[in-house]
Amino acid sequence: DVLKTQHGVFRIAEPPHELLLECGEKLGPIDIDWESYGELNAEKNNAILVCHALTGDSHVAGKADPKDPKTGWWDPMVGPGKPLDTNKYFIICSNILGGCSGTTGPSSINPRTGQPYAMTLPTVTIKDMVNCQKELVEKKFGIKKLLSVIGGSIGGMQVLKWAVLYPELVESIIPLSTTAKLTPQAIAFNKIGRRAIMLDPKWNNGSYYKDQPELDGLALARMVAHITYLSEEGMRQKFGRDSRDHSIFELNDSFEVEHYLDHQGYSFIKRFDANSYIYLSKAMDIFDLSRNYDSIEAALKRINAKVLTITFTSDWLFPPFQTEELVEILQKNDVDIEYHKLESPKGHDAFLIEYKLINPIITSFLQRVERKS
Amino acid sequence: DVLKTQHGVFRIAEPPHELLLECGEKLGPIDIDWESYGELNAEKNNAILVCHALTGDSHVAGKADPKDPKTGWWDPMVGPGKPLDTNKYFIICSNILGGCSGTTGPSSINPRTGQPYAMTLPTVTIKDMVNCQKELVEKKFGIKKLLSVIGGSIGGMQVLKWAVLYPELVESIIPLSTTAKLTPQAIAFNKIGRRAIMLDPKWNNGSYYKDQPELDGLALARMVAHITYLSEEGMRQKFGRDSRDHSIFELNDSFEVEHYLDHQGYSFIKRFDANSYIYLSKAMDIFDLSRNYDSIEAALKRINAKVLTITFTSDWLFPPFQTEELVEILQKNDVDIEYHKLESPKGHDAFLIEYKLINPIITSFLQRVERKS
Repeated sequence: DVLKTQHGVFRIAEPPHELLLECGEKLGPIDIDWESYGELNAEKNNAILVCHALTGDSHVAGKADPKDPKTGWWDPMVGPGKPLDTNKYFIICSNILGGCSGTTGPSSINPRTGQPYAMTLPTVTIKDMVNCQKELVEKKFGIKKLLSVIGGSIGGMQVLKWAVLYPELVESIIPLSTTAKLTPQAIAFNKIGRRAIMLDPKWNNGSYYKDQPELDGLALARMVAHITYLSEEGMRQKFGRDSRDHSIFELNDSFEVEHYLDHQGYSFIKRFDANSYIYLSKAMDIFDLSRNYDSIEAALKRINAKVLTITFTSDWLFPPFQTEELVEILQKNDVDIEYHKLESPKGHDAFLIEYKLINPIITSFLQRVERKS
Repeated sequence: DVLKTQHGVFRIAEPPHELLLECGEKLGPIDIDWESYGELNAEKNNAILVCHALTGDSHVAGKADPKDPKTGWWDPMVGPGKPLDTNKYFIICSNILGGCSGTTGPSSINPRTGQPYAMTLPTVTIKDMVNCQKELVEKKFGIKKLLSVIGGSIGGMQVLKWAVLYPELVESIIPLSTTAKLTPQAIAFNKIGRRAIMLDPKWNNGSYYKDQPELDGLALARMVAHITYLSEEGMRQKFGRDSRDHSIFELNDSFEVEHYLDHQGYSFIKRFDANSYIYLSKAMDIFDLSRNYDSIEAALKRINAKVLTITFTSDWLFPPFQTEELVEILQKNDVDIEYHKLESPKGHDAFLIEYKLINPIITSFLQRVERKS
């Protein structure tokens, strides 16, 4: 079986139109960078939208170039015979608005100035990301209803928003390791990351694109975030208190966990835009599924999609109790909902790692959705 | 009842002597800034040593100056009729080696150069701190055995080290919210703090004393540490997702928790030295009670003090399971040990807050120790 992949850029909000953002400002034109896997059937009812996480992108599966050493970020999930089975389903993923992998974001050129938007880009929200995805799904592919929308973390926030905002457009949703709103602790960590970026003089108030400096502040932001993606138990299993062979009494980094974080931080800055980090982390902070509704109950009342949701015991950034509050409300609403809290030491990252646990669950849920739809 | 307070600076390791540090280097002279409360009895057997936490100091109780708006950091614990009852006990606390409140640390003048040590101070450890305290207790006060040694967090590390290193000098110990070694997660957060300081150009490789700049990096280090001192539940109770009255869609700080962290960070830098932060956080990271012994069991075998230890359910920086591992070993050794895991949402900070819970426990433990000794 060969993974059939397409890649493109779809332009929306072209003059004289602009997209009205949730913050009240307008933005356009907007380029949406997307990839697809498998084939859309004649009825156009086999499409599944994947919503990527904070630092992911539209390249979900396979290799963009055969020589590429790395496959897409969710390769074990998408392909022939895999849970998002490209023999049956048509999989779409687009880079989120505000990111830095092709879709319009702070590093994109503002056609009015000929310069990158940088920090002049209006604030973008989860709702704005969903609205861009909707334009792509409807106008590019002519899809009237998605078989499913799936994603974890900030991707899961988009999944929830889809189901509340456009209940008639989604047959089912699969939000993973996510929440209807971040905890103040998670907001606090995002603030640390933004502040680390902004204190770096090389960030230069966001206008650093010309010189492409090495942004230590962004590396530090990634390091602190990375701690929150792992669990205490997972870190003990992975690093323990191991140290490098030089003296433990040096003031410099000596523990393996310190070297690991450095490696993660400085790898990250080669592929990610500091301003996107600021915009996207803020979009997570201000996401509140109940906004514009009387209550979270009123928002969830709108959902009529079948729901599969999964959390992991050691995820302390998006703690399971938050999902459980939603599950309880949805159960009262008689929504067709399936919930799994899975044992894992992999923390928030588990939805990108624990395929043995989640793949069978997602496979059988989609088969059930398919039969009923 | 009046709180009888004394304050002084005791000099040790004067020429031609120097203190041999655990790292192998020598340091001297060393000034030890101390305070005492109550009176040492004629038998000199009523002395309790308090070991302060990372950013505490020797000023434990009362007001250094009657006009001072703030009392000492553990005022509800120390005074007439309080658990460390100054009507009965003689309480001593000294600033730890490497700190910045009077005892020798990186901001102290190196007599050889006439300049602050800054980053030329050798690495200091918990053992070195304990050895300074021992010199003070023995040489300044002529005390042969302490009735108790008490402290939380890094203070608790010193308490444990006292009992293992000098079992014959301590009648009892009260380590609170502490551990025999940090988790890799806690080391990772300390690394973030040190890196935040070091990335700040105003830090200038530690040589910033002359200009006394506002060190944003130190403020950031404090902010991230502060998150780890609270608990997720505690933050929800304290801040929720409350925001200031300006638009939620601003990219700047909007949530109360963000403003709170800023306030904490920028208050902190007015009273604390960035280089001390680096030295003391490193001392915590490299502390391992089993170092120089065959195992943690072998180290703990040396303890014959009566032990009271307390943890709090929501302390995720010094998680209770770490103390429970020690308790289990000490119980096997037939040590007289009392352990309490207390329910509290106050996280690691609980030992500085939950007086209603801990004061009766400490009071009755000390009464029991007193009777038996």
